[in-house]
Amino acid sequence: MMERMNKGERSVSRIVEIKTPGAIVFGVGACEKLPERIKALSNGAVLIVTDAGLVKAGTAKKIKDLVSSAGLEAGVFDGVEPDPDKENVYKCLEMVKSTGAQVLLGLGGGSSLDVAKTAAVLSVSEGRLADYVGINKVAKKGLPTVLLPTTSGTGSEVSPIAVISDKKQHLKLGIVSPYLYCDLAIVDPGLTVSCPAGITASAGMDALTHAIEIYTNKFSVPIIDAIELEAIRLIGRHLRKCVQDGTDLVAREGMSLAALYGGLGLGPVNTAAVHALAYPLGGTFDVAHGLANSILLPYVMEFNRPAREEKFAKIADALGTAGAESMSDKASAAVKAVVDLSRDVGIPKHMRDINIPADAIPEMAAGAMKVTRLLNNNPREMTLGDIEGIYRLAY
Amino acid sequence: MMERMNKGERSVSRIVEIKTPGAIVFGVGACEKLPERIKALSNGAVLIVTDAGLVKAGTAKKIKDLVSSAGLEAGVFDGVEPDPDKENVYKCLEMVKSTGAQVLLGLGGGSSLDVAKTAAVLSVSEGRLADYVGINKVAKKGLPTVLLPTTSGTGSEVSPIAVISDKKQHLKLGIVSPYLYCDLAIVDPGLTVSCPAGITASAGMDALTHAIEIYTNKFSVPIIDAIELEAIRLIGRHLRKCVQDGTDLVAREGMSLAALYGGLGLGPVNTAAVHALAYPLGGTFDVAHGLANSILLPYVMEFNRPAREEKFAKIADALGTAGAESMSDKASAAVKAVVDLSRDVGIPKHMRDINIPADAIPEMAAGAMKVTRLLNNNPREMTLGDIEGIYRLAY
Repeated sequence: MMERMNKGERSVSRIVEIKTPGAIVFGVGACEKLPERIKALSNGAVLIVTDAGLVKAGTAKKIKDLVSSAGLEAGVFDGVEPDPDKENVYKCLEMVKSTGAQVLLGLGGGSSLDVAKTAAVLSVSEGRLADYVGINKVAKKGLPTVLLPTTSGTGSEVSPIAVISDKKQHLKLGIVSPYLYCDLAIVDPGLTVSCPAGITASAGMDALTHAIEIYTNKFSVPIIDAIELEAIRLIGRHLRKCVQDGTDLVAREGMSLAALYGGLGLGPVNTAAVHALAYPLGGTFDVAHGLANSILLPYVMEFNRPAREEKFAKIADALGTAGAESMSDKASAAVKAVVDLSRDVGIPKHMRDINIPADAIPEMAAGAMKVTRLLNNNPREMTLGDIEGIYRLAY
Repeated sequence: MMERMNKGERSVSRIVEIKTPGAIVFGVGACEKLPERIKALSNGAVLIVTDAGLVKAGTAKKIKDLVSSAGLEAGVFDGVEPDPDKENVYKCLEMVKSTGAQVLLGLGGGSSLDVAKTAAVLSVSEGRLADYVGINKVAKKGLPTVLLPTTSGTGSEVSPIAVISDKKQHLKLGIVSPYLYCDLAIVDPGLTVSCPAGITASAGMDALTHAIEIYTNKFSVPIIDAIELEAIRLIGRHLRKCVQDGTDLVAREGMSLAALYGGLGLGPVNTAAVHALAYPLGGTFDVAHGLANSILLPYVMEFNRPAREEKFAKIADALGTAGAESMSDKASAAVKAVVDLSRDVGIPKHMRDINIPADAIPEMAAGAMKVTRLLNNNPREMTLGDIEGIYRLAY
């Protein structure tokens, strides 16, 4: 399959399976559809899974009121932490059981959505979270889940993946299963308006990382490529505006769509080396997932460039770069366009800017090397030495 | 909502709902996945719903053997007719009941897929087919359905729509319901290799009609626009090759993907005036659906051009036309590119070429005027006089 795939345009592609949530409702104001839609799903009590920040901002109350207006009981678990670990999921699970919730509504960034997805599965299954880590380890569907993202980044609202941190072992654990597709994703760009500029920037660069890693993936397929290239176009057109003026709904809509398109490719194709190299930054130094990806993206792109010149040239076009003539120059221009975008939205350029110590590099490289499920997807093979080299350049 | 939409790029779009089949398996050789996938869906007997041509070609046997290899009973209903009517659906339904089938497998062009979808719903519901005509008239999910298209055109494998002819009233009846999404679509471009050049051409132009009518629709949305523009690109690149050499798997794959992308927009957006004007040709004169659309497409495009210049210019780019500079010239070039493509694949240019009598035009126009569910989608309003005028130009 892989061989057939790499012969260029005149070969057929590998066979791919596409799944999506039960339904996706997209658009500014979409959350107003929540009452009728959640009632169609279940008449049981709803637990809103979110973080303290969204409670403070009033977003959790707004959503709770919408659920109540459908005549359904609504509780709030506001304990989701950034890069949540299994204890965080278990706390949520306790509240599911104590409140008798029959529907989990994830409201927030990737952390809240992933806790909701994981707790939904654990609610109906025996066993501990660790039993489900890996690919296709979940045996059956969990409680119904409704996901409302408040950032434009992870795409978790349309993916079959949840990422949970193991803080003792400094690892990120991926649970990948078709049972993690939610039943209803309500993607309302209006909910992202209150997202601060810094998180808007790193989440947006996370979405760009998804799109680029899926599009240039060793296992890329045309059916997904088209939407990832569109995601790259949307991010080039809208991310700077979102960071400058968070209330620009057209730009917010563009970024919500880009993140969703990125998420749609995570199941059928998934990410590659940027994510593998970012995990140790998160696991060991608590660097937020989007920020870790953002810093590493240009350096990994530069490493991968020789293996995907044609696609890099198309990325340059999608990001609106002008001037380069040859395919090789255009491919280089793609890397530069990502560097420029990253700088313009205020992402630090180097790992040292976020206080990663240089002497941690060998251990981080060893950690990244273990993320074979993603490194295997990279268009160019990476040795331990390559990974160390990339970290040093990024340092 | 509509007003917000027509103010150009700096307004947000309308709220849209996206649904897809339970799973889509796409790629050359995908039908080899049928045994494991159908078994995961049900252990009950399978009825293959197809036409006599696919039995003769051996395709039905190949699929029956794949079902049998999963240890499942498989029967064949080979009575699907082109542009099937309700009697045709009832005949299929009788066989579902007499064989005790628990899964319907549609194998063929849009006619076979639509009969399978409709019979699946009728199998578990009281009432006659007429009760379900219209939007959201189906009350519950039918028997599980698996759809394997053998043409690249209707996109019925991923749409919530079935079209059934009323031969007495010379009408086409649309059943539109989320319960018509199939449980599993297996889109194997290898199954389209035996499709003859003429049907390849008209089915491909049908897919182009879907993509253009969805992309330029009054209710178009960016989330769907991106994939429809890609469908137009794929058809421009691959349709001529498929017609010239039906065994070219890369071109077949491109057309299978284009048809699927077209189908994905039918639920959230749907088609417009070309389809409304094509229905009377099918209903009254038994002109195949794809052929009727193909003949009318350029004339309706010319009528709609002033209302969607910018999008028509992008269609011209997608079809690879060169030379035009201004947006207006580019928009005209889009119509010419469709005329050229249609000619190159052997579609007749005029209705008189397929023996439609000129004096039928007033009655056809009156019939088209009744298809308000599609005319309402058209980017430019059409009066009865406009419709007659378009038929006369097409004559």
